[in-house]
Amino acid sequence: MMPVPRMKELLRERGQMVESYLATCFDGRPIPQRLKDSMQYSLQAGGKRLRPVLCLSTAAMCGLPLQDTLPFASAIEMIHTYSLVHDDLPAMDDDDLRRGKPSNHKAFDEATAILAGDGLLTDAFLMMCRSPLAPPRVLRAVGELALAAGSSGMVGGQEWDMIFTGKADIALEELKGIHAMKTGALLRASCVCGAMLAGASDEELAAIGSYGAALGVAFQIADDILDVVADTATLGKPVGSDVVQGKKTYPALLGLEKSRALAQDQAEVAKAALAAFSGPEAEFLLALAEYTVNRAA
Amino acid sequence: MMPVPRMKELLRERGQMVESYLATCFDGRPIPQRLKDSMQYSLQAGGKRLRPVLCLSTAAMCGLPLQDTLPFASAIEMIHTYSLVHDDLPAMDDDDLRRGKPSNHKAFDEATAILAGDGLLTDAFLMMCRSPLAPPRVLRAVGELALAAGSSGMVGGQEWDMIFTGKADIALEELKGIHAMKTGALLRASCVCGAMLAGASDEELAAIGSYGAALGVAFQIADDILDVVADTATLGKPVGSDVVQGKKTYPALLGLEKSRALAQDQAEVAKAALAAFSGPEAEFLLALAEYTVNRAA
Repeated sequence: MMPVPRMKELLRERGQMVESYLATCFDGRPIPQRLKDSMQYSLQAGGKRLRPVLCLSTAAMCGLPLQDTLPFASAIEMIHTYSLVHDDLPAMDDDDLRRGKPSNHKAFDEATAILAGDGLLTDAFLMMCRSPLAPPRVLRAVGELALAAGSSGMVGGQEWDMIFTGKADIALEELKGIHAMKTGALLRASCVCGAMLAGASDEELAAIGSYGAALGVAFQIADDILDVVADTATLGKPVGSDVVQGKKTYPALLGLEKSRALAQDQAEVAKAALAAFSGPEAEFLLALAEYTVNRAA
Repeated sequence: MMPVPRMKELLRERGQMVESYLATCFDGRPIPQRLKDSMQYSLQAGGKRLRPVLCLSTAAMCGLPLQDTLPFASAIEMIHTYSLVHDDLPAMDDDDLRRGKPSNHKAFDEATAILAGDGLLTDAFLMMCRSPLAPPRVLRAVGELALAAGSSGMVGGQEWDMIFTGKADIALEELKGIHAMKTGALLRASCVCGAMLAGASDEELAAIGSYGAALGVAFQIADDILDVVADTATLGKPVGSDVVQGKKTYPALLGLEKSRALAQDQAEVAKAALAAFSGPEAEFLLALAEYTVNRAA
């Protein structure tokens, strides 16, 4: 496994590649300035860029240079960003802060935030379709992303989240199911799409899909734990906001200790799934899985 | 040109094909029931299904059987429907009625309406990607749709609409520009995508694009006129709501008579663009352009 400092360096480098790409991705297009500003405001609000980095890295592990998948991978960050903008809306989670800054509808207005989300989502598909890679591979990867982001994936998970928030009880299997849709599907698809673009075999795709699914569970549990134990400055939003909002979380259901064990367990599942791969990119993905559960923010 | 009754019969038949396809398009997918109900509520709320019919018909004119483009064409109606659901939200046009029924956020709730819109948009891309036609053609058509629906198309037009609504003055060229984005781009793309799926030449695509663009202008002017002259029962929403909301319209800017002349003029431009095509499908599209400006609802 790659040493942690080197993994973090690569994660930061690749995150910056994505950020630079996104910073100019609307240039030259006739988009109303206020809408463009609103989309860029949320795109440039920071974050680890984990989803595009996963896409870039599985593609690289399967033989494709980073530059070849950069537009497609960056589009995944646009989908992730749109989901945050809509989730923060008053009718949804009603969050005024996102990563320590006013959320989109606070910095602009509610109508613009709705449209910025719609624009980011739609333009993400445009960016993916314009990938210069082989059309059959691109089309398959776009479909994979749409499935993961849509009503039986991320959007459906958010609906379940709204339905269960504040309600009395939830079983562990239900919580897992919601998170598999809400955050797991897009993380998994980010991994799978990179490999699809590189023309990976069905066997490789299955292994990378298992990696992404387990990573997604580990990531969500770690997120839930951070909401309880991190400090507000590190987290960029008030600590304990999940509890205040009546959100269903792993620590609330299992306690901190069992949640930590489950996250570590899933990181091991993720790592085991990549057993057939070797080389620096595989080493990076193994270290990333470990980091997912041990990160401080 | 095809006689009006035959054109209307075909329009109804094709609209029903789309409606039937959409009625079962979520079957077997693990979508939260409330979200599925909300998406279907708006999908089954009626309408002429003009955009998918245009897609089916340009594809047919270029040699493709209707059944081959039905899923792709139906997905365009999902994109149109999502835009209506989001436009009706309290933070946007705040419309309680849509086609004579409570709008989505009134029938369900605001969070579900936002998510239903997001789900319809994302699932539309899934449905398009799953088209069994040749991947290079499908990918190109999906990109065309994304461009038309995104921040430099429909979403951008809606942002302009919000910015200009209630403001003092607007020039005719500005109004044309807004509508070209807000309604024109998707209507044009509906026409172009059908032809793309059928493998039409660049020359044919340009002609069909001109038809779609002119049809889009004619359609929007006719819509604005109907808001002034139709009765509430026919329109399914209060007559004159554009004026009440301070919307910028052609009749407000040019008066009814000049608006009617401009619409008729654009219908003629649309028909002229198809000069190189012949046969029943071309006849149908000519009659449809004429109908667009002379319809009663």
